[in-house]
Amino acid sequence: MKYFYIRQYLPIALLFAAFSSTAQSGVTNSKPIPGFTDKTSVAQLQAEADFDKNISAENIGNTIRTLAAKPHPIGSAAGKAVAEKIAASFKQYGFEVKTEVFQVLFPTPKVRELELTAPTTYKAVLKEPALKEDGTSGQDGQLPTYNAWGADGDVMGELVYVNYGLPADYEQLERMGIDVKGRIVIAKYGRSWRGIKPKLAQEHGAIGCIIYSDPRDDGYFQGDVYPKGAFKNEWGVQRGSVMDMVIYPGDPLTPNIGATDTAKRLDRFKAPNLLKIPVLPVSYHDAKPLLEALQGPVAPEDWRGALPITYHVGPGRARVHLRVESDWKLRPCYNVIATLPGSLYPNEWVIRGNHHDAWVNGAADPISGLASLMEEAKAIGELVKTGWRPRRTLVYCAWDGEEPGLLGSTEWVEQHAEELQNKAVAYINTDGNGRGFLEAGGSHALEPLIEDISKVITDPQTNVSLFDRRRANDLVNASGINAKKEILAKRTLSLSALGSGSDYSAFLQHLGIPSLNLSFGGEDAGGEYHSIYDSYDYFVRFKDPGFQYGVALSKTAGRAALRLANAEILPFNFRNLFNAVNGYVSELMTLTDQMREATLVENQVIRSRAYKLAADPTLVYNAPKVKEEVPYLDFSPLQNALRDFEKISKQAGDSLTRLVNNSTDHGPLNKLLYQAEQQLLVSKGLPGRPWYKHTLYAPGFYTGYGVKTLPGIREAIEQRKWEQAQQQINVAADAIQQLSDQLYLAAKLAG
Amino acid sequence: MKYFYIRQYLPIALLFAAFSSTAQSGVTNSKPIPGFTDKTSVAQLQAEADFDKNISAENIGNTIRTLAAKPHPIGSAAGKAVAEKIAASFKQYGFEVKTEVFQVLFPTPKVRELELTAPTTYKAVLKEPALKEDGTSGQDGQLPTYNAWGADGDVMGELVYVNYGLPADYEQLERMGIDVKGRIVIAKYGRSWRGIKPKLAQEHGAIGCIIYSDPRDDGYFQGDVYPKGAFKNEWGVQRGSVMDMVIYPGDPLTPNIGATDTAKRLDRFKAPNLLKIPVLPVSYHDAKPLLEALQGPVAPEDWRGALPITYHVGPGRARVHLRVESDWKLRPCYNVIATLPGSLYPNEWVIRGNHHDAWVNGAADPISGLASLMEEAKAIGELVKTGWRPRRTLVYCAWDGEEPGLLGSTEWVEQHAEELQNKAVAYINTDGNGRGFLEAGGSHALEPLIEDISKVITDPQTNVSLFDRRRANDLVNASGINAKKEILAKRTLSLSALGSGSDYSAFLQHLGIPSLNLSFGGEDAGGEYHSIYDSYDYFVRFKDPGFQYGVALSKTAGRAALRLANAEILPFNFRNLFNAVNGYVSELMTLTDQMREATLVENQVIRSRAYKLAADPTLVYNAPKVKEEVPYLDFSPLQNALRDFEKISKQAGDSLTRLVNNSTDHGPLNKLLYQAEQQLLVSKGLPGRPWYKHTLYAPGFYTGYGVKTLPGIREAIEQRKWEQAQQQINVAADAIQQLSDQLYLAAKLAG
Repeated sequence: MKYFYIRQYLPIALLFAAFSSTAQSGVTNSKPIPGFTDKTSVAQLQAEADFDKNISAENIGNTIRTLAAKPHPIGSAAGKAVAEKIAASFKQYGFEVKTEVFQVLFPTPKVRELELTAPTTYKAVLKEPALKEDGTSGQDGQLPTYNAWGADGDVMGELVYVNYGLPADYEQLERMGIDVKGRIVIAKYGRSWRGIKPKLAQEHGAIGCIIYSDPRDDGYFQGDVYPKGAFKNEWGVQRGSVMDMVIYPGDPLTPNIGATDTAKRLDRFKAPNLLKIPVLPVSYHDAKPLLEALQGPVAPEDWRGALPITYHVGPGRARVHLRVESDWKLRPCYNVIATLPGSLYPNEWVIRGNHHDAWVNGAADPISGLASLMEEAKAIGELVKTGWRPRRTLVYCAWDGEEPGLLGSTEWVEQHAEELQNKAVAYINTDGNGRGFLEAGGSHALEPLIEDISKVITDPQTNVSLFDRRRANDLVNASGINAKKEILAKRTLSLSALGSGSDYSAFLQHLGIPSLNLSFGGEDAGGEYHSIYDSYDYFVRFKDPGFQYGVALSKTAGRAALRLANAEILPFNFRNLFNAVNGYVSELMTLTDQMREATLVENQVIRSRAYKLAADPTLVYNAPKVKEEVPYLDFSPLQNALRDFEKISKQAGDSLTRLVNNSTDHGPLNKLLYQAEQQLLVSKGLPGRPWYKHTLYAPGFYTGYGVKTLPGIREAIEQRKWEQAQQQINVAADAIQQLSDQLYLAAKLAG
Repeated sequence: MKYFYIRQYLPIALLFAAFSSTAQSGVTNSKPIPGFTDKTSVAQLQAEADFDKNISAENIGNTIRTLAAKPHPIGSAAGKAVAEKIAASFKQYGFEVKTEVFQVLFPTPKVRELELTAPTTYKAVLKEPALKEDGTSGQDGQLPTYNAWGADGDVMGELVYVNYGLPADYEQLERMGIDVKGRIVIAKYGRSWRGIKPKLAQEHGAIGCIIYSDPRDDGYFQGDVYPKGAFKNEWGVQRGSVMDMVIYPGDPLTPNIGATDTAKRLDRFKAPNLLKIPVLPVSYHDAKPLLEALQGPVAPEDWRGALPITYHVGPGRARVHLRVESDWKLRPCYNVIATLPGSLYPNEWVIRGNHHDAWVNGAADPISGLASLMEEAKAIGELVKTGWRPRRTLVYCAWDGEEPGLLGSTEWVEQHAEELQNKAVAYINTDGNGRGFLEAGGSHALEPLIEDISKVITDPQTNVSLFDRRRANDLVNASGINAKKEILAKRTLSLSALGSGSDYSAFLQHLGIPSLNLSFGGEDAGGEYHSIYDSYDYFVRFKDPGFQYGVALSKTAGRAALRLANAEILPFNFRNLFNAVNGYVSELMTLTDQMREATLVENQVIRSRAYKLAADPTLVYNAPKVKEEVPYLDFSPLQNALRDFEKISKQAGDSLTRLVNNSTDHGPLNKLLYQAEQQLLVSKGLPGRPWYKHTLYAPGFYTGYGVKTLPGIREAIEQRKWEQAQQQINVAADAIQQLSDQLYLAAKLAG
């Protein structure tokens, strides 16, 4: 109770004593871990201490070196070998291991050509050079630079520069009177998930899409380039998927079902999340001659990058020829599933996972996250040797085919959906790791679990707790006095909400299984992502040189798994979830009000002809048009649902706290708790994308990885679909009411 | 009364009808001009219409071509010839002309050397090439690229990059543990007047200062470079003065007195506004090898420019050798003073001026502003031929030596201080002109005068009034809904407050003579400023192709001069001044409160050790130190003085409006009015810079050209000198009280 006490009653100034302490494990020893009895808490803390001793930085480093030794994308022999190595290790640690194979579509490039044909000619290199400083950079078996899932195509046309290729950019193009129809666009990486760029280009009639890394965002502007420094050199290219994952992830031919040998498959040309236009990623070396050749208006100031040129938008004399062709084959997808059955509740699964496939060698992405996961499994194996057993089943997973679109995890989740909704307590993901600050996202009922853990693990560099170091960083980077005051006044940890971009997506957003995504970062910035330079040599110089954050990640994610596996009463705190949802609803109400006022004022400005009058008459300019006014939405169903949810979440919380030392079987109660988040699912899914069923969390339709909370409502508002917004308010209110009902049952059961 | 009526009573939506109208001259005809009787108003409008007819775009173009035909800095034969040409023209227009010569110090470069000596060598070019597209760019007589008033010096040392070289940049350097003592700094042009950069470098112990134009701010990042486009090419260099003008402008050897042949002069090495270290401006071509050679930490993100390099701060291996030597000579400074005596009040002077000296050819700076001024004189001369005479004396001036430090105007003002404080009604300046929007700064009692004028002159490109076009631009560029709402709700024009950077400075800030500075711009951006490319060829392509904004400037400034010359009762409105001062006082109170809270919170953050904990332990980092808390200041003397001022300004305004058709001699009343602003002077001047006597307007001590309003108070607060802030509050309160007393006399006289 110490933190709580300090938080509530001491004057601000005394709070800072806490910063001078190291992690509070000594203190925490004196009070039980939430969800544990006084007695099991002591045992648990002992197990955690033993677990910590079994985590070895050196071993994590060895795992990274070994598994990142060769390029190992899905479908490659090396990829299969990696899966086999992982399976063998899990076996060695004492887990039961099964490799589940799916047959998934995965295109690999056959033809990639890009040339400027006018006013001068330039043929793009499309190749990252091997470097003597990077031992694996010259290996065979590298997938060439490409964007998986771009359509086959051979197109030629005028080039248009579209900034990041986002909705606001196309509005700006319209202001300038520039249309991309029948043209080829070149967009910068950044500000959205990459797949949004060709999707929007296609929506606007473009016939091809080039994506490049501007040195402003990912190159010399950020710091010295590889191999001198960590940042992207002029040849570096970010590979990556451009499947429209916000419709659904996984094998595009088998939505909602596992891509087994016999699964019924869609015709690839009818898969709704595949593009119709070719796409190619290029380096800034290759982009420069193209951008330099553009004419037309000078790009708006915030569109300009760090190439030593004047950025023009086009179109005009600059014409390009783009040709892409892929080998569209089904490939085996090897998911390694390692199980350590629970002693008491074998049918309650705590699932821990990350992928093993990489675009190339993938020392950071995914191996650094996977190495910590395997180190946990190894350490748990050691505990088992001493007679320790988890009360619930631990399931450690290594997914294949995450890079092209979360293929392995999604197919597995779809295949085992019913069983998972019945048994899965939580899913914990760790996709890549580096030096810096704890980054934690996930289901908000798990906030206190991660907060407690972050306060007992010491940051490897500063000797304060992970919590304190992260809070210091939040404090320093908070913009504005009010934000700083808020952080100063608070001693709790906030989880970010999860969008997409890693293997938690199907667990959380398709099945409603409480999920966490954990990593460290912030002091490991660089340009290696999805390039041949994401190597062991790079990793030990720039990401996590002594693997100490690998150790910290094992301790953090491992503790989360162990506490979930062993708690008497599962440490879900729905008051935290209430606070999060309540905050999101407030945001949406404010957003609607602000849009209403902004629309009113903006329409006045438009009607005043100010845009036309202020524009430079020597340039083309189309003034914006007036927009429909924003109606008042009825938020009351949501507000009423929240009022009930607040009450019941408090009541349930109190009951559970009282109950923990009661020696009855908490099985039925716990099941109500871990299935609570499933109540937030809606069977019809989100508007236009039924695969996504969670009413609280989804990747943004026009942002990609970036989360939209209360997505049904929020995106309807953002897209000015007022009727849909109102309908989605009602849907979310029902879901929250369902969750309250579930908690009511739990509270009742708790007595 | 039309505008007022609309402003007060019509619903917002109807306001926008106004935007569809052209300038309202027809409407305004029907009501008298403020300060005129019904009858004289008609005559005045007729004179203005005749005046307009005499303004010729072609002639303005000819003047620009003629006067910018050769490089003509102060002290050059060509400069003398330009003065003679101007004098001859004024004579031809019917003015009495006198050329007043002062002897002022003006250093010209003898030696300029800059080389990188380690780790590689590079010798700076320091020369702008002639271009075939620019007819005057290869002429003899160009002053080489240099910063006048930098000390002679021959220094060698490690290089440090200091961003813009401003106080916050040195704080940031301290965070990084980097000291410039004994080193040579390289700073970017921009964000402050250039002289601030070497001044701060010197304050921090640097032994030399290089200033360069980064292409981010002034080069290819902004647009196509010259001669293809308007922006600075890699060789272009901004010349300019680095005299510490915020101490005092004018001849550094003769502060407060005219630099006549016999004036008592300071020893140059004792002049408090001259530097002790050498300074040199360079192109981005010359800066690149230097910046590229720097080691040390990567520059903070907002320090980085648009060169294709990683910006490092240094110090380290990069060493430079800088050698500068000037010819420190007294030179004749030719001020051309053309007078048209007033028919009724010859001892009341309406002064109109701009400089004629240029760093090189100066087609835009200053000739475009001067050409409009001369066109006005010509047009007024034509009026005189028809029998028209101004009631007050018009004094048209062309100053020499503005570029090195407002030499000509300042010496003239100092020489004639007493007479000017007795006779000068107002000073109207127009330093350079281009295409775009009306930019108007000055004494706030003249706001309604400029507002009225801006509503009757038509913008050359859009066919609406200058006022409406400027308002449209303000509206479109206002950041945030509230700012837009404010502009939508308002039909008045705001003058910006004047800092320094042109010849109004001595009139306004040394003598308290009401001043205006007028120009057009915003659609004429480019990189020609103070370079050999500020030429006629450049001007007609990029600044004001058809000279139509030259015409608009003549009409605007000419009308202001004519209305001030002929009004029955001078059109000063002190309620506008009250509103401005009242706004500034509110700002200062808010600023103090915000600083108090920010200091409190920031000190908590510092005491929490968050800065240290959040910092990357692999880099040097010095956490900021706690600051003294901000006391509560007693603003009540100022508030009380403002309360009185509000009352009396309203009362005086009402009396004057009633009085205008009364046929008494308004001479004594007008004198009280035009001397009113002098009541805001304080004889001791501002803290540390007694030459600046205006309590309301001054250039910022650490910004240069940029204005600080209520500077004594504001800078004391910014510099956390709390006792001085309190004392300056009292000083300003007394000054405002004095102004109220003067208005009380005026109101009394008005009856």
